[in-house]
Amino acid sequence: MLFRQLFDRESCTYTYLLADGGEGILIDPVKELVERDVEVAQQLNVKLKYLLNTHCHADHVTGTGDLKKVLPDAKSVISKASGAKADVLVNDGDAIAFGSRHVTVHATPGHTDGCVTFVLDDKSMCFTGDAVLVRGCGRTDFQQGDAGKLFDSVHEKVFSLPDETFVYPAHDYKGRTRSTVGEEKKYNLRLTKSRDEFIDIMANLGLPYPKMIDVAVPANLVCGIQDE
Amino acid sequence: MLFRQLFDRESCTYTYLLADGGEGILIDPVKELVERDVEVAQQLNVKLKYLLNTHCHADHVTGTGDLKKVLPDAKSVISKASGAKADVLVNDGDAIAFGSRHVTVHATPGHTDGCVTFVLDDKSMCFTGDAVLVRGCGRTDFQQGDAGKLFDSVHEKVFSLPDETFVYPAHDYKGRTRSTVGEEKKYNLRLTKSRDEFIDIMANLGLPYPKMIDVAVPANLVCGIQDE
Repeated sequence: MLFRQLFDRESCTYTYLLADGGEGILIDPVKELVERDVEVAQQLNVKLKYLLNTHCHADHVTGTGDLKKVLPDAKSVISKASGAKADVLVNDGDAIAFGSRHVTVHATPGHTDGCVTFVLDDKSMCFTGDAVLVRGCGRTDFQQGDAGKLFDSVHEKVFSLPDETFVYPAHDYKGRTRSTVGEEKKYNLRLTKSRDEFIDIMANLGLPYPKMIDVAVPANLVCGIQDE
Repeated sequence: MLFRQLFDRESCTYTYLLADGGEGILIDPVKELVERDVEVAQQLNVKLKYLLNTHCHADHVTGTGDLKKVLPDAKSVISKASGAKADVLVNDGDAIAFGSRHVTVHATPGHTDGCVTFVLDDKSMCFTGDAVLVRGCGRTDFQQGDAGKLFDSVHEKVFSLPDETFVYPAHDYKGRTRSTVGEEKKYNLRLTKSRDEFIDIMANLGLPYPKMIDVAVPANLVCGIQDE
Protein backbone atom coordinates (compact mmCIF):
# COMPACT_ATOMS: atom_id res chain seq x y z
CA MET A 1 0.00 0.00 0.00
CA LEU A 2 1.21 3.47 -0.86
CA PHE A 3 1.19 5.90 2.05
CA ARG A 4 2.07 9.57 2.28
CA GLN A 5 1.74 12.02 5.11
CA LEU A 6 1.51 15.70 4.15
CA PHE A 7 1.61 18.77 6.37
CA ASP A 8 0.13 22.26 6.33
CA ARG A 9 2.48 24.61 8.20
CA GLU A 10 -0.21 27.25 8.59
CA SER A 11 -2.88 25.26 10.45
CA CYS A 12 -0.50 22.40 11.42
CA THR A 13 -2.87 19.96 9.72
CA TYR A 14 -1.78 16.55 8.48
CA THR A 15 -3.30 15.22 5.27
CA TYR A 16 -2.91 11.54 4.44
CA LEU A 17 -2.82 9.78 1.10
CA LEU A 18 -3.43 6.02 1.08
CA ALA A 19 -3.57 4.08 -2.16
CA ASP A 20 -3.60 0.58 -3.50
CA GLY A 21 -3.67 -0.60 -7.11
CA GLY A 22 -3.79 2.97 -8.37
CA GLU A 23 -6.89 3.88 -6.32
CA GLY A 24 -6.58 6.18 -3.37
CA ILE A 25 -8.19 8.12 -0.57
CA LEU A 26 -7.13 11.44 0.89
CA ILE A 27 -7.86 12.11 4.54
CA ASP A 28 -8.32 15.70 5.74
CA PRO A 29 -7.13 17.72 2.77
CA VAL A 30 -6.61 21.47 3.30
CA LYS A 31 -8.06 24.01 0.85
CA GLU A 32 -4.83 25.98 0.42
CA LEU A 33 -2.83 22.87 -0.49
CA VAL A 34 -5.10 21.27 -3.06
CA GLU A 35 -2.60 21.91 -5.85
CA ARG A 36 0.14 20.08 -3.95
CA ASP A 37 -2.14 17.17 -3.14
CA VAL A 38 -3.29 16.78 -6.74
CA GLU A 39 0.32 16.84 -7.93
CA VAL A 40 1.43 14.23 -5.37
CA ALA A 41 -1.44 11.92 -6.34
CA GLN A 42 -0.89 12.37 -10.08
CA GLN A 43 2.85 11.77 -9.89
CA LEU A 44 2.26 8.62 -7.84
CA ASN A 45 -0.32 7.46 -10.42
CA VAL A 46 -3.11 7.51 -7.87
CA LYS A 47 -6.71 8.14 -8.88
CA LEU A 48 -8.40 9.69 -5.86
CA LYS A 49 -11.68 7.92 -5.20
CA TYR A 50 -12.73 9.35 -1.85
CA LEU A 51 -11.88 12.58 -0.05
CA LEU A 52 -12.41 11.90 3.63
CA ASN A 53 -12.93 14.33 6.48
CA THR A 54 -12.46 13.09 10.02
CA HIS A 55 -14.85 15.84 11.11
CA CYS A 56 -16.13 19.33 10.40
CA HIS A 57 -12.90 21.20 11.16
CA ALA A 58 -12.92 24.59 12.88
CA ASP A 59 -9.32 25.57 12.13
CA HIS A 60 -9.07 25.26 8.37
CA VAL A 61 -11.30 24.84 5.34
CA THR A 62 -11.35 21.35 3.88
CA GLY A 63 -9.78 20.84 0.46
CA THR A 64 -12.65 18.55 -0.51
CA GLY A 65 -14.63 21.11 -2.47
CA ASP A 66 -11.73 22.39 -4.58
CA LEU A 67 -10.45 18.86 -5.13
CA LYS A 68 -13.82 17.80 -6.52
CA LYS A 69 -13.63 20.61 -9.08
CA VAL A 70 -10.32 19.21 -10.36
CA LEU A 71 -11.18 15.53 -9.83
CA PRO A 72 -14.87 15.25 -10.69
CA ASP A 73 -14.98 11.48 -10.04
CA ALA A 74 -13.76 11.85 -6.45
CA LYS A 75 -16.43 11.77 -3.77
CA SER A 76 -16.43 13.79 -0.55
CA VAL A 77 -16.98 11.81 2.64
CA ILE A 78 -17.91 12.91 6.16
CA SER A 79 -19.93 11.32 8.95
CA LYS A 80 -23.71 11.61 8.91
CA ALA A 81 -23.48 12.71 12.55
CA SER A 82 -21.47 15.79 11.53
CA GLY A 83 -24.57 17.36 10.00
CA ALA A 84 -22.45 18.38 7.00
CA LYS A 85 -23.28 17.82 3.34
CA ALA A 86 -21.12 15.42 1.33
CA ASP A 87 -21.40 12.88 -1.46
CA VAL A 88 -21.09 10.02 1.01
CA LEU A 89 -22.28 10.22 4.61
CA VAL A 90 -20.82 7.47 6.77
CA ASN A 91 -21.75 5.83 10.05
CA ASP A 92 -19.88 3.82 12.64
CA GLY A 93 -18.76 0.49 11.16
CA ASP A 94 -18.90 1.54 7.50
CA ALA A 95 -15.97 0.62 5.26
CA ILE A 96 -14.40 2.84 2.60
CA ALA A 97 -12.56 0.80 -0.02
CA PHE A 98 -9.64 1.69 -2.31
CA GLY A 99 -8.02 -1.01 -4.46
CA SER A 100 -7.99 -4.17 -2.36
CA ARG A 101 -7.76 -2.23 0.92
CA HIS A 102 -10.22 -0.36 3.10
CA VAL A 103 -10.53 1.81 6.17
CA THR A 104 -13.32 1.34 8.68
CA VAL A 105 -15.22 4.20 10.28
CA HIS A 106 -15.10 4.31 14.08
CA ALA A 107 -17.39 6.96 15.55
CA THR A 108 -15.31 8.94 18.08
CA PRO A 109 -17.50 11.91 19.06
CA GLY A 110 -16.55 14.38 21.78
CA HIS A 111 -14.46 17.06 20.08
CA THR A 112 -17.48 17.39 17.77
CA ASP A 113 -20.54 15.16 17.49
CA GLY A 114 -19.49 13.94 14.07
CA CYS A 115 -15.84 13.06 14.71
CA VAL A 116 -14.70 9.71 13.35
CA THR A 117 -11.47 7.73 13.39
CA PHE A 118 -10.55 5.82 10.24
CA VAL A 119 -8.85 2.49 10.96
CA LEU A 120 -6.91 0.69 8.25
CA ASP A 121 -8.05 -2.91 7.56
CA ASP A 122 -4.98 -4.56 9.16
CA LYS A 123 -5.09 -2.15 12.12
CA SER A 124 -1.54 -0.98 11.40
CA MET A 125 -2.70 2.65 11.31
CA CYS A 126 -5.54 4.77 12.56
CA PHE A 127 -6.39 8.35 11.61
CA THR A 128 -7.82 9.93 14.70
CA GLY A 129 -8.64 13.46 13.55
CA ASP A 130 -8.80 15.63 16.67
CA ALA A 131 -9.99 12.83 18.97
CA VAL A 132 -6.45 11.77 19.84
CA LEU A 133 -3.51 14.06 19.15
CA VAL A 134 0.09 13.16 20.03
CA ARG A 135 0.10 13.44 23.83
CA GLY A 136 -3.13 15.44 23.71
CA CYS A 137 -6.62 15.73 22.22
CA GLY A 138 -8.90 18.22 20.53
CA ARG A 139 -10.66 20.81 22.67
CA THR A 140 -14.26 20.30 23.74
CA ASP A 141 -15.47 23.85 24.32
CA PHE A 142 -17.24 24.51 21.01
CA GLN A 143 -19.12 22.67 18.21
CA GLN A 144 -21.00 20.23 20.49
CA GLY A 145 -17.80 19.50 22.39
CA ASP A 146 -18.31 17.08 25.26
CA ALA A 147 -15.33 15.97 27.32
CA GLY A 148 -17.02 12.92 28.84
CA LYS A 149 -18.09 11.74 25.40
CA LEU A 150 -14.57 12.24 24.05
CA PHE A 151 -13.04 10.29 26.92
CA ASP A 152 -15.43 7.38 26.33
CA SER A 153 -14.93 7.45 22.55
CA VAL A 154 -11.17 7.30 22.80
CA HIS A 155 -11.12 4.57 25.44
CA GLU A 156 -13.69 2.44 23.59
CA LYS A 157 -12.68 2.98 19.98
CA VAL A 158 -9.00 3.94 19.89
CA PHE A 159 -7.33 2.63 23.03
CA SER A 160 -8.92 -0.76 22.31
CA LEU A 161 -6.77 -1.07 19.15
CA PRO A 162 -3.44 -2.93 19.36
CA ASP A 163 -0.66 -1.04 21.15
CA GLU A 164 1.38 -1.16 17.94
CA THR A 165 -1.24 0.63 15.83
CA PHE A 166 0.20 3.90 14.59
CA VAL A 167 -1.83 6.96 15.54
CA TYR A 168 -1.89 9.55 12.76
CA PRO A 169 -3.56 12.69 14.09
CA ALA A 170 -5.12 15.61 12.22
CA HIS A 171 -2.65 18.02 13.80
CA ASP A 172 0.57 18.36 15.68
CA TYR A 173 2.09 21.62 16.75
CA LYS A 174 5.52 20.27 17.72
CA GLY A 175 6.46 18.48 14.51
CA ARG A 176 5.70 14.97 15.75
CA THR A 177 4.40 13.06 12.77
CA ARG A 178 2.90 10.03 14.48
CA SER A 179 2.47 8.08 17.69
CA THR A 180 1.15 4.65 18.65
CA VAL A 181 -1.87 3.54 20.65
CA GLY A 182 0.50 2.09 23.26
CA GLU A 183 2.32 5.38 23.64
CA GLU A 184 -0.86 7.38 24.01
CA LYS A 185 -2.25 4.95 26.57
CA LYS A 186 0.93 5.53 28.56
CA TYR A 187 1.95 9.13 27.90
CA ASN A 188 -1.07 11.12 26.72
CA LEU A 189 -1.14 14.10 29.05
CA ARG A 190 -4.94 14.17 29.29
CA LEU A 191 -6.39 10.86 28.19
CA THR A 192 -4.40 8.83 30.73
CA LYS A 193 -6.25 10.57 33.59
CA SER A 194 -9.48 9.36 35.16
CA ARG A 195 -12.70 10.35 33.39
CA ASP A 196 -13.48 12.97 36.05
CA GLU A 197 -10.00 14.45 35.98
CA PHE A 198 -10.14 14.55 32.18
CA ILE A 199 -13.44 16.43 32.23
CA ASP A 200 -11.99 18.86 34.75
CA ILE A 201 -8.82 19.42 32.65
CA MET A 202 -10.88 20.02 29.52
CA ALA A 203 -13.16 22.50 31.32
CA ASN A 204 -10.20 24.60 32.41
CA LEU A 205 -7.96 24.89 29.36
CA GLY A 206 -8.73 28.61 28.98
CA LEU A 207 -8.06 28.58 25.25
CA PRO A 208 -8.84 31.59 23.03
CA TYR A 209 -11.75 31.62 20.56
CA PRO A 210 -10.52 29.75 17.44
CA LYS A 211 -9.56 32.39 14.90
CA MET A 212 -10.74 30.42 11.84
CA ILE A 213 -13.95 28.95 13.24
CA ASP A 214 -16.43 31.44 11.75
CA VAL A 215 -15.01 30.92 8.29
CA ALA A 216 -14.12 27.24 8.53
CA VAL A 217 -17.25 25.70 10.02
CA PRO A 218 -19.77 27.10 7.50
CA ALA A 219 -17.47 26.08 4.64
CA ASN A 220 -16.85 22.63 6.06
CA LEU A 221 -20.54 22.02 6.67
CA VAL A 222 -20.82 21.90 2.87
CA CYS A 223 -17.50 20.07 2.47
CA GLY A 224 -15.96 23.11 0.84
CA ILE A 225 -18.59 23.44 -1.91
CA GLN A 226 -19.43 27.00 -0.93
CA ASP A 227 -21.43 27.90 -3.98
CA GLU A 228 -24.09 25.30 -3.20
CA MET B 1 13.25 -0.97 13.71
CA LEU B 2 11.71 2.06 15.34
CA PHE B 3 11.44 5.10 13.10
CA ARG B 4 10.17 8.62 13.73
CA GLN B 5 10.23 11.69 11.58
CA LEU B 6 10.10 15.05 13.37
CA PHE B 7 9.66 18.53 11.93
CA ASP B 8 10.77 22.05 12.81
CA ARG B 9 8.17 24.51 11.52
CA GLU B 10 10.58 27.44 11.81
CA SER B 11 13.41 26.21 9.56
CA CYS B 12 11.33 23.45 7.91
CA THR B 13 13.95 20.93 9.01
CA TYR B 14 13.25 17.23 9.40
CA THR B 15 14.92 15.34 12.22
CA TYR B 16 14.92 11.54 12.16
CA LEU B 17 15.05 9.03 14.99
CA LEU B 18 16.05 5.47 14.12
CA ALA B 19 16.41 2.84 16.83
CA ASP B 20 16.83 -0.87 17.29
CA GLY B 21 17.07 -2.84 20.53
CA GLY B 22 16.85 0.34 22.60
CA GLU B 23 19.80 2.01 20.87
CA GLY B 24 19.23 4.90 18.54
CA ILE B 25 20.58 7.59 16.29
CA LEU B 26 19.18 11.04 15.63
CA ILE B 27 19.78 12.63 12.24
CA ASP B 28 19.86 16.44 11.94
CA PRO B 29 18.50 17.57 15.30
CA VAL B 30 17.59 21.26 15.66
CA LYS B 31 18.82 23.30 18.65
CA GLU B 32 15.39 24.77 19.50
CA LEU B 33 13.74 21.33 19.62
CA VAL B 34 16.19 19.41 21.77
CA GLU B 35 13.68 19.10 24.61
CA ARG B 36 11.10 17.51 22.29
CA ASP B 37 13.66 15.12 20.84
CA VAL B 38 14.90 14.02 24.27
CA GLU B 39 11.32 13.41 25.39
CA VAL B 40 10.45 11.38 22.28
CA ALA B 41 13.55 9.22 22.71
CA GLN B 42 13.01 8.72 26.45
CA GLN B 43 9.34 7.78 26.07
CA LEU B 44 10.24 5.28 23.35
CA ASN B 45 12.95 3.82 25.61
CA VAL B 46 15.70 4.77 23.19
CA LYS B 47 19.23 5.52 24.34
CA LEU B 48 20.69 7.89 21.79
CA LYS B 49 24.13 6.68 20.79
CA TYR B 50 24.98 8.94 17.87
CA LEU B 51 23.78 12.41 16.87
CA LEU B 52 24.34 12.68 13.15
CA ASN B 53 24.57 15.73 10.95
CA THR B 54 24.19 15.32 7.21
CA HIS B 55 26.27 18.50 6.84
CA CYS B 56 27.21 21.83 8.38
CA HIS B 57 23.79 23.50 8.03
CA ALA B 58 23.46 27.18 7.15
CA ASP B 59 19.78 27.58 8.06
CA HIS B 60 19.61 26.38 11.67
CA VAL B 61 21.91 25.49 14.54
CA THR B 62 22.34 21.76 15.12
CA GLY B 63 20.87 20.32 18.31
CA THR B 64 23.96 18.15 18.73
CA GLY B 65 25.69 20.36 21.28
CA ASP B 66 22.71 20.81 23.57
CA LEU B 67 21.79 17.13 23.27
CA LYS B 68 25.28 16.13 24.42
CA LYS B 69 24.82 18.22 27.57
CA VAL B 70 21.71 16.22 28.43
CA LEU B 71 22.92 12.89 27.07
CA PRO B 72 26.63 12.79 27.88
CA ASP B 73 27.11 9.32 26.35
CA ALA B 74 25.82 10.39 22.95
CA LYS B 75 28.44 11.23 20.35
CA SER B 76 28.21 13.92 17.71
CA VAL B 77 28.91 12.83 14.15
CA ILE B 78 29.70 14.79 10.99
CA SER B 79 31.83 14.15 7.93
CA LYS B 80 35.55 14.81 8.08
CA ALA B 81 35.18 16.70 4.80
CA SER B 82 32.87 19.22 6.50
CA GLY B 83 35.82 20.70 8.41
CA ALA B 84 33.63 20.76 11.54
CA LYS B 85 34.57 19.45 14.97
CA ALA B 86 32.68 16.43 16.33
CA ASP B 87 33.24 13.33 18.45
CA VAL B 88 33.20 11.12 15.36
CA LEU B 89 34.31 12.29 11.92
CA VAL B 90 33.11 9.99 9.16
CA ASN B 91 34.17 9.28 5.61
CA ASP B 92 32.48 7.74 2.59
CA GLY B 93 31.75 4.07 3.21
CA ASP B 94 31.81 4.24 7.02
CA ALA B 95 29.03 2.53 8.94
CA ILE B 96 27.26 3.88 12.03
CA ALA B 97 25.67 1.11 14.09
CA PHE B 98 22.70 1.11 16.48
CA GLY B 99 21.39 -2.16 17.89
CA SER B 100 21.65 -4.72 15.11
CA ARG B 101 21.20 -2.10 12.39
CA HIS B 102 23.43 0.48 10.74
CA VAL B 103 23.48 3.33 8.28
CA THR B 104 26.27 3.75 5.76
CA VAL B 105 27.85 7.09 4.92
CA HIS B 106 27.67 8.07 1.24
CA ALA B 107 29.65 11.22 0.47
CA THR B 108 27.37 13.50 -1.56
CA PRO B 109 29.22 16.83 -1.78
CA GLY B 110 28.00 19.75 -3.85
CA HIS B 111 25.66 21.72 -1.59
CA THR B 112 28.65 21.83 0.77
CA ASP B 113 31.94 19.93 0.54
CA GLY B 114 31.04 17.84 3.59
CA CYS B 115 27.50 16.75 2.71
CA VAL B 116 26.73 13.08 3.22
CA THR B 117 23.71 10.86 2.67
CA PHE B 118 23.03 8.17 5.27
CA VAL B 119 21.69 4.94 3.76
CA LEU B 120 19.95 2.35 5.95
CA ASP B 121 21.45 -1.17 5.78
CA ASP B 122 18.56 -2.68 3.79
CA LYS B 123 18.40 0.36 1.49
CA SER B 124 14.76 0.94 2.42
CA MET B 125 15.53 4.56 3.38
CA CYS B 126 18.14 7.20 2.70
CA PHE B 127 18.62 10.50 4.47
CA THR B 128 19.85 12.91 1.86
CA GLY B 129 20.32 16.12 3.83
CA ASP B 130 20.22 18.98 1.31
CA ALA B 131 21.67 16.94 -1.57
CA VAL B 132 18.23 15.76 -2.70
CA LEU B 133 15.08 17.51 -1.54
CA VAL B 134 11.58 16.47 -2.64
CA ARG B 135 11.51 17.62 -6.30
CA GLY B 136 14.49 19.88 -5.62
CA CYS B 137 17.95 20.16 -4.08
CA GLY B 138 20.00 22.40 -1.82
CA ARG B 139 21.45 25.60 -3.29
CA THR B 140 25.07 25.71 -4.41
CA ASP B 141 25.91 29.40 -4.14
CA PHE B 142 27.64 29.43 -0.71
CA GLN B 143 29.74 27.20 1.59
CA GLN B 144 31.84 25.56 -1.16
CA GLY B 145 28.70 24.98 -3.23
CA ASP B 146 29.43 23.37 -6.59
CA ALA B 147 26.54 22.48 -8.87
CA GLY B 148 28.53 20.08 -11.07
CA LYS B 149 29.76 18.24 -7.98
CA LEU B 150 26.20 18.03 -6.59
CA PHE B 151 24.85 16.67 -9.87
CA ASP B 152 27.54 13.97 -9.96
CA SER B 153 27.08 13.09 -6.26
CA VAL B 154 23.35 12.60 -6.60
CA HIS B 155 23.54 10.59 -9.79
CA GLU B 156 26.34 8.36 -8.47
CA LYS B 157 25.32 7.94 -4.83
CA VAL B 158 21.56 8.48 -4.57
CA PHE B 159 20.00 7.78 -7.96
CA SER B 160 21.95 4.47 -8.02
CA LEU B 161 19.87 3.22 -5.06
CA PRO B 162 16.73 1.12 -5.74
CA ASP B 163 13.77 3.09 -7.08
CA GLU B 164 11.79 2.01 -4.00
CA THR B 165 14.24 3.52 -1.51
CA PHE B 166 12.47 6.25 0.46
CA VAL B 167 14.19 9.63 0.29
CA TYR B 168 14.01 11.48 3.59
CA PRO B 169 15.33 15.00 3.06
CA ALA B 170 16.62 17.53 5.59
CA HIS B 171 13.90 19.98 4.60
CA ASP B 172 10.63 20.43 2.81
CA TYR B 173 8.76 23.68 2.50
CA LYS B 174 5.50 22.25 1.19
CA GLY B 175 4.78 19.66 3.88
CA ARG B 176 5.85 16.65 1.85
CA THR B 177 7.40 14.24 4.32
CA ARG B 178 9.18 11.86 1.97
CA SER B 179 9.77 10.78 -1.59
CA THR B 180 11.42 7.82 -3.32
CA VAL B 181 14.51 7.53 -5.49
CA GLY B 182 12.28 6.49 -8.40
CA GLU B 183 10.11 9.57 -8.02
CA GLU B 184 13.06 11.92 -7.86
CA LYS B 185 14.67 10.32 -10.91
CA LYS B 186 11.42 11.02 -12.75
CA TYR B 187 10.05 14.24 -11.27
CA ASN B 188 12.87 16.20 -9.61
CA LEU B 189 12.59 19.63 -11.17
CA ARG B 190 16.36 20.16 -11.35
CA LEU B 191 18.16 16.83 -11.05
CA THR B 192 16.36 15.27 -14.02
CA LYS B 193 17.98 17.81 -16.36
CA SER B 194 21.32 17.36 -18.14
CA ARG B 195 24.43 18.22 -16.14
CA ASP B 196 24.93 21.46 -18.10
CA GLU B 197 21.30 22.50 -17.72
CA PHE B 198 21.47 21.73 -14.00
CA ILE B 199 24.57 23.90 -13.57
CA ASP B 200 22.84 26.69 -15.46
CA ILE B 201 19.66 26.42 -13.35
CA MET B 202 21.67 26.47 -10.12
CA ALA B 203 23.67 29.52 -11.26
CA ASN B 204 20.49 31.51 -11.87
CA LEU B 205 18.28 30.83 -8.85
CA GLY B 206 18.68 34.41 -7.60
CA LEU B 207 18.07 33.43 -3.99
CA PRO B 208 18.58 35.91 -1.11
CA TYR B 209 21.48 35.64 1.33
CA PRO B 210 20.47 32.97 3.92
CA LYS B 211 19.29 34.83 7.01
CA MET B 212 20.71 32.34 9.51
CA ILE B 213 24.05 31.56 7.85
CA ASP B 214 26.28 33.88 9.90
CA VAL B 215 24.95 32.41 13.14
CA ALA B 216 24.44 28.82 12.03
CA VAL B 217 27.68 28.01 10.25
CA PRO B 218 30.09 29.03 13.06
CA ALA B 219 27.93 27.15 15.57
CA ASN B 220 27.65 24.09 13.37
CA LEU B 221 31.39 24.01 12.67
CA VAL B 222 31.75 23.03 16.33
CA CYS B 223 28.60 20.83 16.26
CA GLY B 224 26.80 23.23 18.56
CA ILE B 225 29.39 23.17 21.34
CA GLN B 226 29.87 26.90 21.23
CA ASP B 227 31.83 27.29 24.42
CA GLU B 228 34.73 25.19 23.11
